[in-house]
Amino acid sequence: MDSQKHTTFPFSEVKHWDITTDVAVVGFGGAGACAAISAADQNANVTIFEAASAPGGSTALSGGDLYLGGSGGTPVQRAAGFTDTTEDMIKYLMAANGPQASQEKIETYCEGALGHYRWLVDLGVPFKKSAVLDRIIMPLTDDCLIFSGSEKAWPFNEQALPAPRGHHVQAKGDNGGQRLMDILTEEANNRGIDIRLDARVLHLITDNKAQVRGLTVRIDGKIFQVKANKGVVLCCGGFAMNESMIKDHAPLLAKCNTPIGNPNDNGSGIQMGISAGGNAINMHEAHVTLPFYPPSSLTYGIFVNAQGQRFINEDAYHGRIGYFTLKEHETSHRIYLIISAEDYPDEHFQSYLNADICATGESIEELEAELEVPQGSLQSTVEAYNHYAKQKSDPSLHKHKDWIKPLLPPFAALDCTPGRGAYFPYFTLGGLETSVQGEALNFNKQKIIGLYAAGRTACGVPRSASGYSSGTSIGDATFSGRLAGYTAANSDDIH
Amino acid sequence: MDSQKHTTFPFSEVKHWDITTDVAVVGFGGAGACAAISAADQNANVTIFEAASAPGGSTALSGGDLYLGGSGGTPVQRAAGFTDTTEDMIKYLMAANGPQASQEKIETYCEGALGHYRWLVDLGVPFKKSAVLDRIIMPLTDDCLIFSGSEKAWPFNEQALPAPRGHHVQAKGDNGGQRLMDILTEEANNRGIDIRLDARVLHLITDNKAQVRGLTVRIDGKIFQVKANKGVVLCCGGFAMNESMIKDHAPLLAKCNTPIGNPNDNGSGIQMGISAGGNAINMHEAHVTLPFYPPSSLTYGIFVNAQGQRFINEDAYHGRIGYFTLKEHETSHRIYLIISAEDYPDEHFQSYLNADICATGESIEELEAELEVPQGSLQSTVEAYNHYAKQKSDPSLHKHKDWIKPLLPPFAALDCTPGRGAYFPYFTLGGLETSVQGEALNFNKQKIIGLYAAGRTACGVPRSASGYSSGTSIGDATFSGRLAGYTAANSDDIH
Repeated sequence: MDSQKHTTFPFSEVKHWDITTDVAVVGFGGAGACAAISAADQNANVTIFEAASAPGGSTALSGGDLYLGGSGGTPVQRAAGFTDTTEDMIKYLMAANGPQASQEKIETYCEGALGHYRWLVDLGVPFKKSAVLDRIIMPLTDDCLIFSGSEKAWPFNEQALPAPRGHHVQAKGDNGGQRLMDILTEEANNRGIDIRLDARVLHLITDNKAQVRGLTVRIDGKIFQVKANKGVVLCCGGFAMNESMIKDHAPLLAKCNTPIGNPNDNGSGIQMGISAGGNAINMHEAHVTLPFYPPSSLTYGIFVNAQGQRFINEDAYHGRIGYFTLKEHETSHRIYLIISAEDYPDEHFQSYLNADICATGESIEELEAELEVPQGSLQSTVEAYNHYAKQKSDPSLHKHKDWIKPLLPPFAALDCTPGRGAYFPYFTLGGLETSVQGEALNFNKQKIIGLYAAGRTACGVPRSASGYSSGTSIGDATFSGRLAGYTAANSDDIH
Repeated sequence: MDSQKHTTFPFSEVKHWDITTDVAVVGFGGAGACAAISAADQNANVTIFEAASAPGGSTALSGGDLYLGGSGGTPVQRAAGFTDTTEDMIKYLMAANGPQASQEKIETYCEGALGHYRWLVDLGVPFKKSAVLDRIIMPLTDDCLIFSGSEKAWPFNEQALPAPRGHHVQAKGDNGGQRLMDILTEEANNRGIDIRLDARVLHLITDNKAQVRGLTVRIDGKIFQVKANKGVVLCCGGFAMNESMIKDHAPLLAKCNTPIGNPNDNGSGIQMGISAGGNAINMHEAHVTLPFYPPSSLTYGIFVNAQGQRFINEDAYHGRIGYFTLKEHETSHRIYLIISAEDYPDEHFQSYLNADICATGESIEELEAELEVPQGSLQSTVEAYNHYAKQKSDPSLHKHKDWIKPLLPPFAALDCTPGRGAYFPYFTLGGLETSVQGEALNFNKQKIIGLYAAGRTACGVPRSASGYSSGTSIGDATFSGRLAGYTAANSDDIH
């Protein structure tokens, strides 16, 4: 990390400008690309500075899912027979994002989601009019629509009408993100946007009115001073790769094992924003997950703690399961997934989970003894579960009836205890506070003139591990980038 | 909140200094008082700026408990028969503060705790050589030593030898904090420290090397520019009173109902520190509590969720219970404390808890029906609990045998659901990152020359709701204040 990054560079000390632009975009992932395209379409001169040697950011590494819907449904949703309402989408995202949800951002996002779909399609981003409605994490094909959150699971299914909203960019499997970025990069080039790669931004330049006037950047060993007449848009990703920031701000993640993203998700954008008076919020939150499906058949199992007790409806989205597994682990030293052997996939099945089978048994008594949970505890849990399972109900934790059937022998237990091998990937959801339009705000919720932020450098729509839904990060990154670029290009704030 | 607080004032624009001092201390609570005294004892000129009309801060509003021990025991511990080791104290605080614990700060604190006790006693702070070893929150008398954390409860009792470490300043009941501040105020006066009350600090003054050179303060409607030759020590409390910051940084607290502290715990110190390049860490953490004892007899009860399941060993410290109650509430819409009627206090007993009796029954079946938990669930929980209770054991959650006895009819349930009346007070544990010596650090862990912080404006020893122990906040505030004042007074950093 650059040792001077926490400070701003004083405008009064700039002797000459090496580069002058209207809008300087820092970072060329999904947010940066959309900010740049959007600003250029408002007739602004735009320069992108990307620290890596190629465009893409973490968006290119992702599967390329965008959480879209509302307004009666996107063409993809409608083709699959779903008429999604904006109201349901808002209700779901408000419930999923918990007390820290931004109503204003969620409403704007949901109201604009269909328009955002069209904007992307107009740029050439392909979405196939097809759906895969199984319980999956992403299509392995080039199909589009999936249920990518906990919409159908309790308690959300009582709060909003469920609809699939994960829109996978048309490309086979996890190549959707790269396809998206290839198209956005081409569109940026088509607009004559000045793209500087291997360009490490070091400082924001601020004047004595605390306005952001530009930045300093190191390219090929030389420092350039860049004037941004309309502003700087920070689109530098989150801080999943910065161990020190994780420890300081999101210590729960220390129990996870794999940060997701690119190496430049090191918090530098957030730090630069703070140096100019920005307010980093929600820094303890992240998307954390235990991707235990596919195979969806494992959803018939039950998660239990070292006390033999269940703690979450197993039909929830894998991120919600991951979060509650981590939380349960605070008081319980083991977390197991108890399954019927018949639900275990054959040896050729590729699972993300990587959890060991730690016990097997012809009876729950046998399993209980092998797991060393208190005698009778798992038996009583399974007895109660099976009792209600025969009626397809789960009065304790409200698992959906589609995933309920009695657990029958032989049994197995998968060790899902954090720190014992199971896969717990994560990325961060805290960042700079911004207005809906993308303007960076200070502690007092006032605009920092000349500074904008988007994507995971900002704190946007997705804010909660317990309710994270796939596609909300790239959906929000591209949407908030678009808005921030538009706002910066039309701004006349700097004086 | 002052609308300009997020910015620093440029040193280059200062035309003249209204006040010149060596060490400027912002805030006159426990941390500020000790910082000022300690700096003055190093022959520094010291000026304190306090926003309120009187000294005291939140320390004066507290019961006046300091978490002290180690080094073979304080005189109070030894008089009560406890030979406390530094190693046990370190082990306990490391375990209690979780992954975000600062080993360096905890070690320094534990190694220095006996010396800190002596330093306070030498200033005239009285501690009676007496102990109240019942399960209480604070002595109602002027007695001293109590168990003020979860030392005797699982899992901590397996990690370190328990010792009582809460040292209550000699004054009846909750007057200990005021007594402490009266003495510290007198000592500050004795040293000729310049004390400015009704003095609202507005900005830190920074130079073009990012050094803190002083501050601006509003006193009686006029703005004064203050030069601090050796530095500024921020001791302005936490942000419990700032609703906007709570929402942005610690949304879990939105479920609590009573912030503890004084109205100036509004985050202004943290904000000023950030404006000068400081790094606010651990901002999501707080002390939250459900003070369900005294009477200690309620500890014989069991906390259950809406699924009729237990989730925490009930003999843990009330703060730990409060935290797990809030967490459990994320997936369970009700939290109950199930008790035998014989353990309920008589009507004259003054309880903090304020929870309604929401069900009574001659049998658990009856209680279960009234509470609308799934049929059989509470019965199976109580059956298992009672089965092991006869053997004085709790294999599920490891409650200590002293608090285990079978639950016998008639029964009652107290509604401890967050948001339904029960008392959930809180204060914040996030703040500016500092070195052990009290120097404010930036994102890159480098010193911000001329800036110091202590108490809840800094992130110190107490860092976790799940393991908070009473007396660690005032213990840490006075200790970290002392160190910061000493460091500032001896510093020669500003150039």
